[in-house]
Amino acid sequence: MAVLRFKAARATMKNTATLLVTCPDRKGIVASIADFLYRHDANILHADQHQDAENNLFLMRVEFDLEGAKVTLDNFPGHFSSIADQFSMNWELKGSQRRARMAIMVSQYDHCLVDLLHRHQSGELDCDIPLIISNHRDTEHLARFYGIPFFHIEVSRDNKAEAEARQFALFDEHQVDLIVLARYMQILSPDFVKRYPHRIINIHHSFLPAFIGARPYHRAFERGVKLIGATSHYVTEVLDEGPIIEQDITRISHRDQVEDLIQKGRDLERVVLSRAVRWHIENRILLYANKTVIFD
Amino acid sequence: MAVLRFKAARATMKNTATLLVTCPDRKGIVASIADFLYRHDANILHADQHQDAENNLFLMRVEFDLEGAKVTLDNFPGHFSSIADQFSMNWELKGSQRRARMAIMVSQYDHCLVDLLHRHQSGELDCDIPLIISNHRDTEHLARFYGIPFFHIEVSRDNKAEAEARQFALFDEHQVDLIVLARYMQILSPDFVKRYPHRIINIHHSFLPAFIGARPYHRAFERGVKLIGATSHYVTEVLDEGPIIEQDITRISHRDQVEDLIQKGRDLERVVLSRAVRWHIENRILLYANKTVIFD
Amino acid sequence: MAVLRFKAARATMKNTATLLVTCPDRKGIVASIADFLYRHDANILHADQHQDAENNLFLMRVEFDLEGAKVTLDNFPGHFSSIADQFSMNWELKGSQRRARMAIMVSQYDHCLVDLLHRHQSGELDCDIPLIISNHRDTEHLARFYGIPFFHIEVSRDNKAEAEARQFALFDEHQVDLIVLARYMQILSPDFVKRYPHRIINIHHSFLPAFIGARPYHRAFERGVKLIGATSHYVTEVLDEGPIIEQDITRISHRDQVEDLIQKGRDLERVVLSRAVRWHIENRILLYANKTVIFD
Amino acid sequence: MAVLRFKAARATMKNTATLLVTCPDRKGIVASIADFLYRHDANILHADQHQDAENNLFLMRVEFDLEGAKVTLDNFPGHFSSIADQFSMNWELKGSQRRARMAIMVSQYDHCLVDLLHRHQSGELDCDIPLIISNHRDTEHLARFYGIPFFHIEVSRDNKAEAEARQFALFDEHQVDLIVLARYMQILSPDFVKRYPHRIINIHHSFLPAFIGARPYHRAFERGVKLIGATSHYVTEVLDEGPIIEQDITRISHRDQVEDLIQKGRDLERVVLSRAVRWHIENRILLYANKTVIFD
Repeated sequence: MAVLRFKAARATMKNTATLLVTCPDRKGIVASIADFLYRHDANILHADQHQDAENNLFLMRVEFDLEGAKVTLDNFPGHFSSIADQFSMNWELKGSQRRARMAIMVSQYDHCLVDLLHRHQSGELDCDIPLIISNHRDTEHLARFYGIPFFHIEVSRDNKAEAEARQFALFDEHQVDLIVLARYMQILSPDFVKRYPHRIINIHHSFLPAFIGARPYHRAFERGVKLIGATSHYVTEVLDEGPIIEQDITRISHRDQVEDLIQKGRDLERVVLSRAVRWHIENRILLYANKTVIFD
Repeated sequence: MAVLRFKAARATMKNTATLLVTCPDRKGIVASIADFLYRHDANILHADQHQDAENNLFLMRVEFDLEGAKVTLDNFPGHFSSIADQFSMNWELKGSQRRARMAIMVSQYDHCLVDLLHRHQSGELDCDIPLIISNHRDTEHLARFYGIPFFHIEVSRDNKAEAEARQFALFDEHQVDLIVLARYMQILSPDFVKRYPHRIINIHHSFLPAFIGARPYHRAFERGVKLIGATSHYVTEVLDEGPIIEQDITRISHRDQVEDLIQKGRDLERVVLSRAVRWHIENRILLYANKTVIFD
Repeated sequence: MAVLRFKAARATMKNTATLLVTCPDRKGIVASIADFLYRHDANILHADQHQDAENNLFLMRVEFDLEGAKVTLDNFPGHFSSIADQFSMNWELKGSQRRARMAIMVSQYDHCLVDLLHRHQSGELDCDIPLIISNHRDTEHLARFYGIPFFHIEVSRDNKAEAEARQFALFDEHQVDLIVLARYMQILSPDFVKRYPHRIINIHHSFLPAFIGARPYHRAFERGVKLIGATSHYVTEVLDEGPIIEQDITRISHRDQVEDLIQKGRDLERVVLSRAVRWHIENRILLYANKTVIFD
Repeated sequence: MAVLRFKAARATMKNTATLLVTCPDRKGIVASIADFLYRHDANILHADQHQDAENNLFLMRVEFDLEGAKVTLDNFPGHFSSIADQFSMNWELKGSQRRARMAIMVSQYDHCLVDLLHRHQSGELDCDIPLIISNHRDTEHLARFYGIPFFHIEVSRDNKAEAEARQFALFDEHQVDLIVLARYMQILSPDFVKRYPHRIINIHHSFLPAFIGARPYHRAFERGVKLIGATSHYVTEVLDEGPIIEQDITRISHRDQVEDLIQKGRDLERVVLSRAVRWHIENRILLYANKTVIFD
């Protein structure tokens, strides 16, 4: 396992911070931030920005080195507040050594789960996975193989509130800050969704907004589309209407039956979900107006 | 122009026939057709078939050489009828030397029109284009350059029936058997659609069934999708619900404004529409259950 | 595991045969084969054919139902030989209930192995995997998890012939008829390759014929290409020159370092290799002139 | 033509400048540039940067508004020189109102030419096209239709130097600063290439570095690849080895003959070349180490 260990080591060795900023657009924002970092000896590793002219909005992501910098994660807010106030910024600062803590929820289809677990183990997803929750037992052996605690919580029409209460308790206990629905076939309550705003990522097995709702592959087959898709998005109160993080498609033909669509779709779902998760945990996503800006 | 002339020559030199068959699936269909052609010395150049198990349907396309065959376009029906009856076939026979006669309807956006005309001139679209009809004059110079008769027929809320009557007269006069809506921004009347069943091809500037209706690029921008698409389909009475012939997509990002979507979409529209038109005139499309089977 | 078991059951329940034919092209081949099957009450489920006019070659794949047919896998050769002789056919017949027996060879990178094992378990790859051979121990735990016998055979410059002899013995013992190199980082001897003609599938991590040989991602990075690719191919005596089965690409940008290419490439390698393996075990590949025809 | 005129108008109405910078990477570069622009009241419209850690290189593109700025295209060098010297910058400044002057060279295949001319007319390519040079007369009518001066200069083994001398004279006379080889089937002399360093864009009809040299579609067909590609690149002294600007691919199958590859390839060539040209004239390309960085 020398290779894997080395990868994991490399990832946690970095000591950087990522600053995400959203504010009204005006002159001098970039200059102020760049000057601030320069004065604090913080070397900029990556910077990307976006202006939305229509909404007069400025969005920026800056990743800088904490090594050798005269600012730390702790004292950054104090130092940065005057600039933040001056430009009315919404901002967040994330340290690379504080890894995201991701819970995975899954039902019976295990292809997305296997994919996430393998990417996690190989160091591609630089986060902690403190637990897996499922309403079935099918994936328990996988969880065990990858050494992740597994919790089986059955969900029915009658016990939904109770089941979610148990889920919340587990999320609290394990200090979860991201919930990934890896083909979890239960609709979350409005309460659940409100509790984790922009903290729940779902994979929908269609090219949204086409085929919102249930059985998208069957409906794609009936409609006779020539491409099928998958969409990862943040979960909001309106089903399948949350901000889209990533989408991709694959070509199908009349030779493909519904079963073939399902099989081809699995490859899409895996890739699309894992990209969304990676961008989230690498703090590459900014949200506004029910849309995402991906600074990749 | 030696190159172009040679290409055009090559296309009309072929003397083949294409048989399209749809019938209930049962044993012996392929054997009967293959045997029929063999007995008439007709060499099979391409054959493709499809079974829809769910609907117990058999679909086939056979292209065979008329040179040296003991059957002609004219006497084929007489010879083939007993097999056709035996298997309750719907069938059509098209000769390669009877080229499709395609009318193009267009409004102001000329990118699809330019593309079709250039492909036609270069021999890629092996059909006749007896006329272009537009509700604007913007593309008249293009029609003239490519030597295609151009008819300007204004359409308003008040004169729609009258305008369509003039269009029908032109189609009749020019013996049109295919109408391509190359970004024609008028909704056809139910009467128009009924008159040319599966003879009208439209290009819709979205990945249907997403963004049915008007202004799909604007709505794609608002929804924050990560891919935009284009769809070519046969026009039926329900807007944007006809059988899909071809679709494709391209990736966009937050850096793309609505204008960029429109620009990127133009490249999609061109390619998707031209593929659909080519498959139609090469008799590669079979229709059933509001879907297409493309034998490419 | 109800879902998985059902899938596996479904796959072996089919009782069909696939006939692959290559012969000089002339009139009457399709008619003869179709008539033969019809006379033996064998219902054609899928048929696809291809003519290579330049080489005057006819290639065909026919899958037919053995249920209710008056021909069996055993007596087919006797019945079919007169047609085969008449048209000078090369042909093969494969029964769906005789599953391919696939050995996987792997070194340290485990992403392709994980992918194949998961697809196998979920029923997507309908074959047996009697063993995994590796020159490292890194993937032994994966083999154990999926219940596949694992053999560790170290390979060095000095023991290559001996190591291969042990491999051949294992292949014989386990009646292997397909060897998949799932990122196996050793070059096979000419003797090995000759022993398994068109029975060894490799995944090369570039868009062949670009970047033949070692370290393709590094060379792609140096050349500054905008897309990277992966290629699955049959192994022949000339390195990376065997018949290509499948290829795919993904887009990269200047923001991608070699490490990112390697990571993005892994997703390609998985998908491209698994498609090639599936087509092989479903008898969808015909070979001629160092090329493949894929009847998918 | 109201639509077209409006587009063209919009493009020239902008009054912005684009600064391209390459220099050794160190702290403070972004801060210095951003501060410089802020002090001169120049609003940053877009900024993008890239660090190449391996080569310790910093690359940046900043587009800023000249309206209301206290710096002009003329006096910028004087004001900026102290920063440029401090960081040892290579830099260029381009004004949006000084449009690139692009010559197109073409032989007989006209699909790329038609595409460029149509994109130019529709406002998508915001440049001047003062002339078209061809070694054939096939495209003269197209040049005339789009109102571009056309020069026919025959090239043979014997008159190459003389022909190029005439070409140079025309480029000088028309103040050409970009030469696009839109399927120009002559190899340029080393003298030609040296004269216009990084000013000549070619479209190669393969996925470079696969199939360098002549007849790539034929060789792709022979090799049996499953995808074909196109590559636009700057022309350097070594054939097909210049910095790659853009690439794309399309899928082919065994059903495609060389002619089909050529036809499918045309769609690729058009799109890939036009993207490269657009990025060049919008000053989105930075060059180093025989590679391009595209700030799109």
